[in-house]
Parts: sequence; C-alpha cells; structure tokens
Amino acid sequence: MAAKTILIVYAHPEPASFNAALRDRAHEALEGAGHRVVVSDLYAEGFNPLAGRHDFTSVANPAIFHYQTEQAHAARHGTFAPDIAREQKRVADADLILFQFPLWWGGPPAIIKGWGERVLAYGFGYADGLRYDTGVFRGRRAMVSMTSGGTTARFGAGNAYGDLQSQVLWQLQHLGLEYMGYELEEPFVAYGAPRTDHAGRLEYLSQLETRVLAAAAKPVDRSLTITNPLDLVPDGAWKQQR
Amino acid sequence: MAAKTILIVYAHPEPASFNAALRDRAHEALEGAGHRVVVSDLYAEGFNPLAGRHDFTSVANPAIFHYQTEQAHAARHGTFAPDIAREQKRVADADLILFQFPLWWGGPPAIIKGWGERVLAYGFGYADGLRYDTGVFRGRRAMVSMTSGGTTARFGAGNAYGDLQSQVLWQLQHLGLEYMGYELEEPFVAYGAPRTDHAGRLEYLSQLETRVLAAAAKPVDRSLTITNPLDLVPDGAWKQQR
Repeated sequence: MAAKTILIVYAHPEPASFNAALRDRAHEALEGAGHRVVVSDLYAEGFNPLAGRHDFTSVANPAIFHYQTEQAHAARHGTFAPDIAREQKRVADADLILFQFPLWWGGPPAIIKGWGERVLAYGFGYADGLRYDTGVFRGRRAMVSMTSGGTTARFGAGNAYGDLQSQVLWQLQHLGLEYMGYELEEPFVAYGAPRTDHAGRLEYLSQLETRVLAAAAKPVDRSLTITNPLDLVPDGAWKQQR
Repeated sequence: MAAKTILIVYAHPEPASFNAALRDRAHEALEGAGHRVVVSDLYAEGFNPLAGRHDFTSVANPAIFHYQTEQAHAARHGTFAPDIAREQKRVADADLILFQFPLWWGGPPAIIKGWGERVLAYGFGYADGLRYDTGVFRGRRAMVSMTSGGTTARFGAGNAYGDLQSQVLWQLQHLGLEYMGYELEEPFVAYGAPRTDHAGRLEYLSQLETRVLAAAAKPVDRSLTITNPLDLVPDGAWKQQR
C-alpha cells in the first residue's frame, strides 16, 4: 500500500473537545500507518472565514468587487493571499481530505464554510464546465467526520433532521466535495456526543481509526487532477456578475 | 393590514452588487407599504462570524469552552456580548425575517452561518424539547431570497444541484428556521444572475417586491413566541459536552 498524504480540516474552538480527540486519533493512526498528515486547525490558526479583497494581492476590477472575477484573476496570476495559497497547497497535496467538526445548526461551523469559499476558489477548485464527473479533483477522496448532539433516531428520511447524506450533508458533500470531483467516503458520525459516556467515546475513537485507515488504504489517481483548470476555459467564458 | 416589523439579514461584500439592489428594493417596498424595516448588513457592520468566548461577558466554565453551556449561562444571566444582544433584539422584534444572499458553494455565505451560530443561541433561539412545532419563534415568518449562478435547469431532484428546498436549502430552512418554529415562505431565487441582462434583473426586482409585500401582509401571532425558553427546561437537563 502506497503512503498517502492526508489533510485534516478541523474546526472546534476548544482544544480539549471530543472533536479534538477524534482529530488526534485519526492523525496518530494515519501517521502510525506510514501516511503523511497535515492538519488545518482553523480556529487555532486564526483562519479568517470572510471573503474579500484581502483574499488577493492583485486587483482585477477596482470599481466593483466581483468575487469570482477576482478569484479567476488571482488563479491566472498566482496572486492569492498567503493564507489562501497555503491552504490551496495543502489541498493540492492531499490524496484524502478528512473534515472533522461538530454539527452546528445542521452544518459545519462557519469557519469551515468560509474556508471553502476562500480556498476552493474559482480557477483553483472549479471552473466553467469542470464539475462532478469532470471536476478538478477527480481521482482523490474526501471524508466527513462529525459529532452531533442528535441521536441516530433524529436522522433518516422523514425524521426530524432528515437523511444524512441527501439532506443534512448535501451542501458540503454534494454541492462542495462531489462538485469538485472528490470521491466520498461514507461520513462518520459520533451521534449523541454530549450524552455519550467515556466507554462510548472510546468506541467512537476506535471506529474512526478503523474508518480513516480503510479510507487511506484505497487507491487514488492523481493523474486525473486538472492542475490548471483555467487553461480549459476559453477567455471571456466567464461573464462578470454584479 | 397591520404594519409589521421586518428584519433583513443581508450578506454581500460589494455595495454595488445585484444582491444589494434586491435588498434595497425589498426595503423600499416594505417601508412604502407602512412596515418597519431593520437591516443587518453583516459585511458592512463587520459582523464577526466566529463562535468563541467573545460571545459572552460572562464565563460559566473557565476550564473548558463548551459553547451551549456558555450560551445557556448567558441566556439566563443576560450576558451576551453587545453585538449578539443587538442582533437578538432585532430577531425578537421581527415578525418576518428576510434573508438576502448569494448562493456560495451551495449555501449562504459563511458570515450568515456564523450569524446563526452566535445569535440564534441555545436559550435564545432554541432549547431542549423546543423545536419545530414547539419551536421558540412559532407564529412568525421567514423567507429566503438569493441569487445563484445556476439556472433553473440545475435545480430539481435528480439535477446537478438537487431539489431547492429539500436539499440545497435544507440546512438553513429546515434545520435552522423551521427548527426554531418559523413558518417559511417559498424561497425567491434570481437564477442565472451573472448572465441575466438589465431587463431580466428589473423583472427579478419586481418579482421580489411582489413576494415580500405578500409575505409581510400575512398574519403573525407573536403570542406563540416563547420569550424565556430556558424557563421551560429543568435545571440540569442540559448535560455538558466536551
């Protein structure tokens, strides 16, 4: 089995949280198996989740800030701000991306949403016509691991929260990761985390270890990745939006 | 028809954006009809979308930051930070909340997600057992208005983005607003906004005006609102999560 590079995108404000324990268990297990692990600890690194002109060291249009226009310009000229360039390199290096977060208001924390908006920019993560089965990161894998206050009974079509994959995680998994071409692992959920006792938490840690090791053992094909997506987009294909 | 109070929660970094035009059209139409309108312009107001101890002027547990524990403590003692207290008052005053944003990576911008995490706190927006048909803000209304680069053909079950309400907007609408007890209006979507010409945009503005005036004309019943949700939760019902 070839050693892989795994990026853990982690979001929780408390270093002693159960989410931190899950992150550490995944990290240690993957390194122990010979893989290379990089962690984007978004809260600890003070990641700014807000889109803006600070995303770029260049300006395509000083009169009006149109986000994708500026992103395309930065992708063509290598002028993303250092924090975004750093995260994009981590993404580009990763065979497998593992997200670890608590489910807040039915989705990942805002800091993860903002990480996606800024890092997975037009011209880096996607471009016109390059999505899903023609996505930029085809051949690579992604996996969601999360905690939820909800028990298993809350999830499922017709239950209070709805189906985990086709509803709750639809935004992140389908409209985000699959859109970019990633092949998804089944999500890992520590259900009812606040009310799970010590033994139950040890069991969750053990289950996550098994899951991430299995995910990392699967083949990836980096030859499918589109390294310069804008080369495939005719100039002017993108019309500016106000 | 009774005059209503409408909160517009608005997120776009560019003051000259089409989203700003939609916000302004809704604002002017509602005021013209005699309603009171308050706008939370999240980017312009520099709203901080990151959860943390800065959310509170109190500390329930200095050893470990557990978000809902601190939120419950602040709700009981009136110790939310000024920015959160201001937004909570706006929410509490509003008969109708209108969200206006561009769809980024399949969802609202991170600044709106973070607004929800911080403002719609445990003890203010929900509490144990108070959700959906027992939600805190029953009797009030909410409506999503958004722009999307995608055309109508991208939406719908089985299409690239999936069904608008049961998949794309599930997090915000069902796991957020309906969870809190709000009655939802049909979402308003300006499809294919970047590629819509001037006449098409005027038509969208006109359609939104019609929609928000109709929504504001519908009855609300503020007597159904639970003003002190934690009074209904036994002490200790909430177990601390690490």
